[in-house]
Amino acid sequence: MATKPVAVISGLGSGSGTGAAAARLLAKEGYAIALVARGADSLKALADEINAAGGTASPFSISSYSTTDINTAYAQIRAHYQGQPIRVALYNATHPVWKPFLDITPEDVQAVTQTNIEGAFAFSKNVIQAFQANQVDEKGKRGSLIFTGATASVRGNITTSAFSAGKHAVRALSQSLAKEFGKQNIHVSHAIIDGGILTNASRERRNDLEWEQNEDVRLSPDGIAESYLHLIKQPRSAWTWELDLRPAHEKW
Amino acid sequence: MATKPVAVISGLGSGSGTGAAAARLLAKEGYAIALVARGADSLKALADEINAAGGTASPFSISSYSTTDINTAYAQIRAHYQGQPIRVALYNATHPVWKPFLDITPEDVQAVTQTNIEGAFAFSKNVIQAFQANQVDEKGKRGSLIFTGATASVRGNITTSAFSAGKHAVRALSQSLAKEFGKQNIHVSHAIIDGGILTNASRERRNDLEWEQNEDVRLSPDGIAESYLHLIKQPRSAWTWELDLRPAHEKW
Amino acid sequence: MATKPVAVISGLGSGSGTGAAAARLLAKEGYAIALVARGADSLKALADEINAAGGTASPFSISSYSTTDINTAYAQIRAHYQGQPIRVALYNATHPVWKPFLDITPEDVQAVTQTNIEGAFAFSKNVIQAFQANQVDEKGKRGSLIFTGATASVRGNITTSAFSAGKHAVRALSQSLAKEFGKQNIHVSHAIIDGGILTNASRERRNDLEWEQNEDVRLSPDGIAESYLHLIKQPRSAWTWELDLRPAHEKW
Amino acid sequence: MATKPVAVISGLGSGSGTGAAAARLLAKEGYAIALVARGADSLKALADEINAAGGTASPFSISSYSTTDINTAYAQIRAHYQGQPIRVALYNATHPVWKPFLDITPEDVQAVTQTNIEGAFAFSKNVIQAFQANQVDEKGKRGSLIFTGATASVRGNITTSAFSAGKHAVRALSQSLAKEFGKQNIHVSHAIIDGGILTNASRERRNDLEWEQNEDVRLSPDGIAESYLHLIKQPRSAWTWELDLRPAHEKW
Repeated sequence: MATKPVAVISGLGSGSGTGAAAARLLAKEGYAIALVARGADSLKALADEINAAGGTASPFSISSYSTTDINTAYAQIRAHYQGQPIRVALYNATHPVWKPFLDITPEDVQAVTQTNIEGAFAFSKNVIQAFQANQVDEKGKRGSLIFTGATASVRGNITTSAFSAGKHAVRALSQSLAKEFGKQNIHVSHAIIDGGILTNASRERRNDLEWEQNEDVRLSPDGIAESYLHLIKQPRSAWTWELDLRPAHEKW
Repeated sequence: MATKPVAVISGLGSGSGTGAAAARLLAKEGYAIALVARGADSLKALADEINAAGGTASPFSISSYSTTDINTAYAQIRAHYQGQPIRVALYNATHPVWKPFLDITPEDVQAVTQTNIEGAFAFSKNVIQAFQANQVDEKGKRGSLIFTGATASVRGNITTSAFSAGKHAVRALSQSLAKEFGKQNIHVSHAIIDGGILTNASRERRNDLEWEQNEDVRLSPDGIAESYLHLIKQPRSAWTWELDLRPAHEKW
Repeated sequence: MATKPVAVISGLGSGSGTGAAAARLLAKEGYAIALVARGADSLKALADEINAAGGTASPFSISSYSTTDINTAYAQIRAHYQGQPIRVALYNATHPVWKPFLDITPEDVQAVTQTNIEGAFAFSKNVIQAFQANQVDEKGKRGSLIFTGATASVRGNITTSAFSAGKHAVRALSQSLAKEFGKQNIHVSHAIIDGGILTNASRERRNDLEWEQNEDVRLSPDGIAESYLHLIKQPRSAWTWELDLRPAHEKW
Repeated sequence: MATKPVAVISGLGSGSGTGAAAARLLAKEGYAIALVARGADSLKALADEINAAGGTASPFSISSYSTTDINTAYAQIRAHYQGQPIRVALYNATHPVWKPFLDITPEDVQAVTQTNIEGAFAFSKNVIQAFQANQVDEKGKRGSLIFTGATASVRGNITTSAFSAGKHAVRALSQSLAKEFGKQNIHVSHAIIDGGILTNASRERRNDLEWEQNEDVRLSPDGIAESYLHLIKQPRSAWTWELDLRPAHEKW
């Protein structure tokens, strides 16, 4: 067990979305999962669920995506998984704000900025340094770092001035890292999630059974996780930086 | 054997590149392969190779990517694989021209246009109509149509005025089809191949053993084919229209 | 008068759109206008109008955007304006097709291809060679070549598979030329016209007086021409390759 | 004089770059200029220069691009130019960081974030609210807000992870505002400055007389300002959101 490679997953909401689906799938693939997010209770619940299913997971709850909190979580992860290489990292944290521009407060801007920029830079720095310590694996990689993006990553719109600013910044970071660290066999990717995802939160918000049950009209976290796993397994001779993901019937 | 679904692959060069790698992989995955390309000899050789390896493949050689020739090949495919649904199609045909603009001849423009536009439209029309006749499969699809793109699909440059015109057109077609036919559970994708691919032709042209053997610096057809297979297997709730593929050390 | 520089404008429809507005404005700016388009009657009417208003214009009607027809028109222009340098060229020809993909005929594809690719390459070759013979002017230019694009230049959509293929190709050509010939002080630009333009044709098709009269909701050819003139006047130290143009209230 | 419309220009460096050139040009065009930037001395020197040349300008120095500092400056501007409408605003502030990713400090990230996001949001909020109080002018506008972007606005690269994150965010903000406030006849634009600009700082850093004197190889602030003025003058029926600007010989 001690030799399992570690996957660090950040941004887990209530444990029903993309981050959680990736955590479950990577646990089945043999990774020890380090869960990094706010919300200690749902984080622990997810770790318990993965462990009960035969996987390995531990929660590292944070109170914010500040540099300090991220660094502290990483120090805990390294202590906890001593001797196990960090091979995969997913930055799935986000802070959606849909508001007309004039309603956006400095606090909204600050929250978007901390989650998408301060946190993403701190997370990435820890990840890249961890990867640099690895040997190249059989796929030719030192590690895989994936960022979850959104429609707002590539398009600003009337209620997304703050959200799209944050998501554009994440995309720029991921592209910069992909270019800088590809040469060191560190694979950085960015996924544009272009549609609504079925999560506990969206289920409640929409309250629309037809939408829930129709797999053609909404993204499933498990479907997204499959593509993340594909990115992780891509051989050194054919790496993807960016892909988009949307349900079959999405209008775009 | 008669119930194998059919994968139609167009654009095969000498049988050592992306199209051929996709053909081999899809044959292993249980598809009957219809090979559509110029060069009857190498087409037959590839079909023989796949059949000898336990797969199923037939050559349908064409003399050009004209509408008529493409339609004729499809009529032959339908006759040959009667009762077997066409489930996958790959349009991999291309006509690279790297020349200063003033050296490009009307014949170059015509060749680029026929391969990338006339042929792509005719191929797609046959494919879409074949897919529409299918039931939705267990992944929620009537079929998968993939186009192979290039760096020139998203960027014009000093020696690619003709080539990039053709590749941009293919990308526009693939995006239009993805949007129009997603609602019918037909999955259309576009792969931006952003780097040199190891093929017999590039091997000869470069004559650079280090480049050949270093998987970090050139694309392998097999690596590309793995991502194509992933696209084909994506569930209806998380489809990719576009992804890029490049070797780990590529400068971009 | 004999020393007026020449502006060649191609694509003029019925003489009420972007090409015609650019012709009128450039005539006022002191260019002799060479009008190249199909429709000999409306071409002559536009030339007459410009000449009556004190400008200089001549019609060079073509029967198609084939290489041969374009080359013939250019030979006539050179003969007609002997000794006058061609300084500006606008490729405004287009062939919009809005149809579901399965309704698009090989003839549609051929027409889109000829207007957007064959014609654009032939036109550009004549222009670039004419510009190369010029001295650099006081703005630091040998000449300005502008291409009119559309929303479909950057996005494929459900009824634009053919149209967007053509417009994407034009955009690729214009970017390639901008990169290749900037070094020779030849300025190539591309304008994305992202909305409906008020022309005789759109007036008739829409039959909507409110739309006509509300300058916030539709593009005016004169407004577009102003930006074209700005591109032409940009100094060598700050050239634009691409800009978008849309009315103030456009949803995009 | 009291009825001059006001142009607020933020980001002025040492007074030799894009912001200063725009200030000088707009002063000549009849705007009263409000200069907002750090560096009280060079700000005062620029205001003095403009006033001495017959224009109207006042400095409003700030100590940072924090929301508070920006809001304070705007309160001062409104008090100073009471009764004069703010018609133009340019957000030219930037904080370039070119460093390998692992050398980027949390302070770098914070500085980039404050200049490009916190400051840009606060600036824009003040501007939009000021514009909303205006009548539509003869061009059909309540006001023009321009953002200065860079190559890093559309591309992350090996030393621009922080810089491009900030510039991508600005671009997203500008696009969102353009879409949200176009309907209110507020014109928001974004200029991608794709090359080196001749300023006092770049002059010193490069120390390359040939580069300075060759207008084909570097941007001039005056050339950029001309295009900004064009954006400001565009009629309501043909507005540009984004254009790129580079010198004639730039490789891109």
